[in-house]
Amino acid sequence: MKLVRYYEGTEICPGLLDGAGQLRSLSGEVVDITGAALDAATLARLAAIDPEQLPLVAGTPRLAPCVGGVGKFMCIGLNYSDHAEEAGMALPEHPILFMKATSAIAGPDDDIVIPRAAQSVDWEVELGVVIGRAAKYVSEAEALDHVAGYCVINDVSERDYQTKLSGQWTKGKSCDSFGPLGPWLVTRDEVSDPQALELTLDVNGQRMQAGSTATMVFSVAQIISHLSQMMTLHPGDVIATGTPPGVGMGMKPQPVYLKPGDQVRAEIAGLGVQSQNVRADS
Amino acid sequence: MKLVRYYEGTEICPGLLDGAGQLRSLSGEVVDITGAALDAATLARLAAIDPEQLPLVAGTPRLAPCVGGVGKFMCIGLNYSDHAEEAGMALPEHPILFMKATSAIAGPDDDIVIPRAAQSVDWEVELGVVIGRAAKYVSEAEALDHVAGYCVINDVSERDYQTKLSGQWTKGKSCDSFGPLGPWLVTRDEVSDPQALELTLDVNGQRMQAGSTATMVFSVAQIISHLSQMMTLHPGDVIATGTPPGVGMGMKPQPVYLKPGDQVRAEIAGLGVQSQNVRADS
Repeated sequence: MKLVRYYEGTEICPGLLDGAGQLRSLSGEVVDITGAALDAATLARLAAIDPEQLPLVAGTPRLAPCVGGVGKFMCIGLNYSDHAEEAGMALPEHPILFMKATSAIAGPDDDIVIPRAAQSVDWEVELGVVIGRAAKYVSEAEALDHVAGYCVINDVSERDYQTKLSGQWTKGKSCDSFGPLGPWLVTRDEVSDPQALELTLDVNGQRMQAGSTATMVFSVAQIISHLSQMMTLHPGDVIATGTPPGVGMGMKPQPVYLKPGDQVRAEIAGLGVQSQNVRADS
Repeated sequence: MKLVRYYEGTEICPGLLDGAGQLRSLSGEVVDITGAALDAATLARLAAIDPEQLPLVAGTPRLAPCVGGVGKFMCIGLNYSDHAEEAGMALPEHPILFMKATSAIAGPDDDIVIPRAAQSVDWEVELGVVIGRAAKYVSEAEALDHVAGYCVINDVSERDYQTKLSGQWTKGKSCDSFGPLGPWLVTRDEVSDPQALELTLDVNGQRMQAGSTATMVFSVAQIISHLSQMMTLHPGDVIATGTPPGVGMGMKPQPVYLKPGDQVRAEIAGLGVQSQNVRADS
């Protein structure tokens, strides 16, 4: 299934895409697409519904983040061997974890808002993993059983805030609007191998990032197992699993950053497309 | 007011302490003590109630974290000049921000649970700040207007996870049970100066930490103003503002860490006492 959250006015409603790519309402079936709706039983119940029987949603509503009520927004740093090379950094021995504020979460096509004092806002297309079943002390072999599905994430990053404000990356990752999730939460059964997904990101129509989850340093299963040794991963928690080469910070002869009016387009094969306009904060 | 959350069975109920220190139920007044109940109007409404008219809560129920529905659990590192000296680290130029997983939040007297592989679980008594009104781009002068109140936090930390698992501190800070909040959320009107509070922490009756928020490198107002330049601080968000000297990691001739059976007691003058038993995870 491709689960979707969309706006009706200011209210967020649950939905799914039918086989023809049409948006259907799930409001009669679940309250919302949050951790509470991502257990195996609920997903099986939704999968058993004939989408043709669900009400069609008129028009093309604004999309909300594809999962709501996110408890933890975890990110893995330097997780692509080719991106680590680009950044001139050694491969990490363990998955590097940092947190993005959940208040940074945005709809997939919402504007990227440059904070007033920011000079170096950058892009990072990433495979997002959404937890469906609580995970604590899980092995790599059983890790993917705890995944509800996958989505596209743009791990938008302010590089000065990340690197020049006295250490720890979270400041540069947590600005409002810096975490577009979606367009869809694609359930695990539709992603046969999370380590064989093509990712791309374009700015103003120019291809900046192109990579494959095949070059991840730590696989999705390894990341989940590792984190679960330390803390419980709860349903609705999200993990952004790192970015392939081509970020603005790594551009030669000098870094290239986003400016008002830029258009960003991020895609992962099978998981859909995000597109964001960049604007300055008012 | 001293706002409290307590368990009735598995349910969490809102309450407050009356002038005699007795627990009174607020269940008829608010659904819960979360960000939604921390706006000035709601706090004023609660303050106008004669506590004697509220139902007494029988017995001594288990206390829950003093604020629920925390969106962001932000922590400031190396924020006491005397602790930075103890850690042998230079004073930071800006507040160091890292995030603690919200899933680490626990009641003030809940057990500290040592993860299976952990060897170096440490304590850090800290002044907790609870946001009551959204803050974005606020000045230092207006920052405290956005505070609902204050609480005691033990920023429990696994030092190997924090420092030896490939960078970024959040791993060592985010284990389940590592964030006791409470006992009370003491509203701002009862804390005349957040930069003049005495903090202490004892392990097995021995004084380990003693300090004053007077030696903070960055004041509560400076921290709020700084963070709000990057992201919106929302009602119910919590900031742990750093710890004074005396953590286990800094002990001579060698570090001292918590072991099963240890008893931890953390206190901030006017904000109450936490006490935790330490146990190994099953």
